[in-house]
Amino acid sequence: MSRHILVAALCAPLAVPALADPLPSWDDAGAQAKIVAFVDSVTEEGGAGYVEPSRRIAVFDNDGTLWSEQPAYFQLFFALDFLKAEAEKDPSILTSPALKAGAAGDLEALAATGMDGLLEVIEVSHAGLSTEAFQARARDWATTAVHPTSGLTYAQMTYAPMVELLGYLRDNGFSTWIVSGGGVDFIRGFAEAAYGIPPWQVIGTRGRTEWDPVSKTVMKTGGVALIDDKEGKPVGIAQQIGVRPILAFGNSDGDYQMLDYVTSGEGPSLGLIVHHTDAAREFAYDREGHIGVLDRALDEAEGHGWVVVDMAAEWSTIWSGE
Amino acid sequence: MSRHILVAALCAPLAVPALADPLPSWDDAGAQAKIVAFVDSVTEEGGAGYVEPSRRIAVFDNDGTLWSEQPAYFQLFFALDFLKAEAEKDPSILTSPALKAGAAGDLEALAATGMDGLLEVIEVSHAGLSTEAFQARARDWATTAVHPTSGLTYAQMTYAPMVELLGYLRDNGFSTWIVSGGGVDFIRGFAEAAYGIPPWQVIGTRGRTEWDPVSKTVMKTGGVALIDDKEGKPVGIAQQIGVRPILAFGNSDGDYQMLDYVTSGEGPSLGLIVHHTDAAREFAYDREGHIGVLDRALDEAEGHGWVVVDMAAEWSTIWSGE
Repeated sequence: MSRHILVAALCAPLAVPALADPLPSWDDAGAQAKIVAFVDSVTEEGGAGYVEPSRRIAVFDNDGTLWSEQPAYFQLFFALDFLKAEAEKDPSILTSPALKAGAAGDLEALAATGMDGLLEVIEVSHAGLSTEAFQARARDWATTAVHPTSGLTYAQMTYAPMVELLGYLRDNGFSTWIVSGGGVDFIRGFAEAAYGIPPWQVIGTRGRTEWDPVSKTVMKTGGVALIDDKEGKPVGIAQQIGVRPILAFGNSDGDYQMLDYVTSGEGPSLGLIVHHTDAAREFAYDREGHIGVLDRALDEAEGHGWVVVDMAAEWSTIWSGE
Repeated sequence: MSRHILVAALCAPLAVPALADPLPSWDDAGAQAKIVAFVDSVTEEGGAGYVEPSRRIAVFDNDGTLWSEQPAYFQLFFALDFLKAEAEKDPSILTSPALKAGAAGDLEALAATGMDGLLEVIEVSHAGLSTEAFQARARDWATTAVHPTSGLTYAQMTYAPMVELLGYLRDNGFSTWIVSGGGVDFIRGFAEAAYGIPPWQVIGTRGRTEWDPVSKTVMKTGGVALIDDKEGKPVGIAQQIGVRPILAFGNSDGDYQMLDYVTSGEGPSLGLIVHHTDAAREFAYDREGHIGVLDRALDEAEGHGWVVVDMAAEWSTIWSGE
């Protein structure tokens, strides 16, 4: 074993739980108390709730749970920005009403072209390149493009309290994963820098891909292979992780089945929901609208024992970039 | 950070490379020299070949690379044994020529029923249960059922020199993964105990699965969702790992594309092939036959810089269970 590991372990910061607040951005009296109690229980060797480290698997939705998703999913802004830039270089690519609407940033006209039109717009940025090149494209965009209302880059609009929670869980031997309806390689573009979550711990919607023996890369060829939302989330978890996680955090009804799966195992588990209650500092939404709808999961949370986090009341800060 | 990590690091065995053979089952003058040189290079901080630990990703084929695959893929024996046992309990389940042939262990008659017949036989053991229950079923079989000629259980027929290699790589900060044409949940049944490879580091062929909201499990529903062989291997790696590995080990032409993908990246890499040359202690095969055919990859290995391991000459031991 490399002596580097020994040196690193000696030099690593030693957290002393009894003397410092492990989650300083969180209101001690809210969800934090339940989170810390759960972590204390699964890490207490010899305790009734002990879970060995390799099985301390925590899964997180991304849009609306780890970063914002208003006024639209950020991946859509990525697709539109790329289309716009390509059209500026060569307007002849705008060969359909959907592409014209997308390049003009006219979301209503784009919505009118239906799913086919949306997929056409997405394809411009999401096909014809390798998965590695696509991750780099997503990284560049997320760290430079500016959100329409916040004044921050998209990568700055991750939730600081959630980034804090991810670090706290990892300090306690958890592995942290993303399970998202967003594109897996889109998320991989920024998740390691933004969240400390490496590429192989991201599960998401997959575009179709093919091995290219000439470039020796795996190319994105267009179209969708698997949508990782709702019932797709437990399926994706079973495919890629292969064991049931013990902690799940979501924000919408698209996370209902993931929360149900994770909190229905035989051992200890914890399910949590971010409730977007903060019109002043972020966006307030739940049952209405089309993005991040939280309705059934909110009604049934108490019966399942899922903890609902009130952003306005419990988070002392919102975005990482502020 | 838990003080447990510090104690564990202090108590972990300190390997002293210069004084002990890191791969005692391997002939020092063969592939071992190239493996150790590669590992020394990627772990030397400040060296030209340095790779940071999270990117030291090593991928291994399973059948014929980590355990034997003769006289047939072991997963087929699993399917046949299960069918036989079910038929003994209830002979009325044998409703087709394929099922009758399978239950009788008549591989030639089964082969005559084609792919449809084979899938019918496989479905008996591989559908109608959760992924968790299926992993347990595979684990029970692999650790108890005995191979037709070796006298060992199937789990004992892993290659001791490869298990040694996996440990050596992990001691040097590598993560070790399986990328197999075999079933992902079949392999997960025994890979952690046999190889130290956890479920989330197994990539394989996937059966179709569905979320069941009643049992709160992910159920195997029958049929194949994705075959992880040949061109499917780089695709599976890109989907599940999300970055290009730096070491790949296979044994057949089904691993050609994986070897090509891994050894065509920009940084350091190493590709290796196990060549089944040992009729006395294991099975000798390469270009002929239907299982683990090694033909094109053997011819092109030298041109690609892939190291070919001669089992008969380079391994002082074969099976873990002997």
